Amino acid sequence: MPVSWSSLFILSKKKMMKNFKITIEYDGTSYHGWQRQKNERTIQEEIEKALLTMTGKKTVLTASGRTDAGVHALGQVANFTCDTDLSPQAFQNGLNSLTKDDIVIISCDIVDENFHSRFDAKSKTYHYKILNRNLPAAIDRQYAWFIRKRKRLDLDAMGRAISHIIGTHDFKAFEGSGSPRSHTTRCIIKADIVEQGNGLMIFEIEANGFLRFMVRNIVGTVVDVGLGKITSGDFKKILLSKDRSRAGATAPPQGLFLMNVKY
Amino acid sequence: MPVSWSSLFILSKKKMMKNFKITIEYDGTSYHGWQRQKNERTIQEEIEKALLTMTGKKTVLTASGRTDAGVHALGQVANFTCDTDLSPQAFQNGLNSLTKDDIVIISCDIVDENFHSRFDAKSKTYHYKILNRNLPAAIDRQYAWFIRKRKRLDLDAMGRAISHIIGTHDFKAFEGSGSPRSHTTRCIIKADIVEQGNGLMIFEIEANGFLRFMVRNIVGTVVDVGLGKITSGDFKKILLSKDRSRAGATAPPQGLFLMNVKY
Repeated sequence: MPVSWSSLFILSKKKMMKNFKITIEYDGTSYHGWQRQKNERTIQEEIEKALLTMTGKKTVLTASGRTDAGVHALGQVANFTCDTDLSPQAFQNGLNSLTKDDIVIISCDIVDENFHSRFDAKSKTYHYKILNRNLPAAIDRQYAWFIRKRKRLDLDAMGRAISHIIGTHDFKAFEGSGSPRSHTTRCIIKADIVEQGNGLMIFEIEANGFLRFMVRNIVGTVVDVGLGKITSGDFKKILLSKDRSRAGATAPPQGLFLMNVKY
Repeated sequence: MPVSWSSLFILSKKKMMKNFKITIEYDGTSYHGWQRQKNERTIQEEIEKALLTMTGKKTVLTASGRTDAGVHALGQVANFTCDTDLSPQAFQNGLNSLTKDDIVIISCDIVDENFHSRFDAKSKTYHYKILNRNLPAAIDRQYAWFIRKRKRLDLDAMGRAISHIIGTHDFKAFEGSGSPRSHTTRCIIKADIVEQGNGLMIFEIEANGFLRFMVRNIVGTVVDVGLGKITSGDFKKILLSKDRSRAGATAPPQGLFLMNVKY
């Protein structure tokens, strides 16, 4: 098959483009979430501004998914393509010195040109931290949902409730409005809740994908079970109902951490 | 001995005064330390303002000691006397709702009228957190001193150095200027350093009292030992020299926590 000069040029041009994968830890407290927005500070915007400074080119970051305002990450993953001689280490060092200290680039690697942070993600794991004791905490208050221990949360009942979401289900009942999705079925690989002592409880949820507000809506409803407002059986009925109006309130953002993304 | 009417009046008046002891957790990040200052937000001022709101009277707090700008506490102790019918529980609830969420009153009790938070303190315990790894942390960055792991801190050497301060010594070499003190001798009851995993190290120091910047000056000098700049023997010589100019830099405030005060 004959190859035209112009397609050869495109080929050589394409060859110079490198695809960089970065893993990011961030404290979401001061940000309006991941995604670039007009007139609001976001994580994506901060890193893209630093990339512009480093490369002189407008460079767009693609993340494994958005995180909402106030949500944190220990292992968000994003990628960007760039025609550059800069090494991954140079990008990591440069981005870490150009962004504020509430954003840390944990790793940077050159990956296959076809790698896509969102489409190639096999699963994501979130943690949600709840502090259930008599008094709130001054230290670390920005990293947990404080629920006053008028009544101790019933961990067993919460565990029973959350076990119902394991497997493949339609999560329409736990979906926030404005989800960018083609369908509402997701597969939950792991769902667990453990007590860490001193009133700290950690939810761990791993799934092949998440709808908007899904973790926080599940947590809010599981907490209703813990408080005895509904039973774990009611929780299952809510899941099956696919009716958002029956689920509990959305848990606040500061307890939520995107822990890692598997590819 | 005859008792005059006026002294009887003073006696009955005095009887109505109650002495309240409070234990306080605070995140020092947004404060210029404990002690009231002109034109700066301080912990003392925030709580005294809340006491004024609750009692309608100017009420002065006496703490176990000052903490400097940016230093945290999990168990600071203070007391105030007040002619009031309010219960300790009412004070605790009221102060917690009137102060911001970076200040939490952990407990409030009526104590002997002669109790004095500073003079009666038998010992105080501080923790100092160091994060020694390749990358800083975005989460919890406001609660530790990040020391980049170009070279791993030598924990054994640091342990040997810190063991030299146990017992009664003149700590003039580790004293910051402006200490309100009559002498510079203090008794160290416990001094230890432990590794917590993932690069986190915690110094624990208990003493009958501390000079200004004493913990942070000790930590700064012990870190010089950890980095191999000086030996643990040098550290001992610095202590014995009583010469501040020979000690290391003052460690930054955000790693320091006043853990508890014993009476």
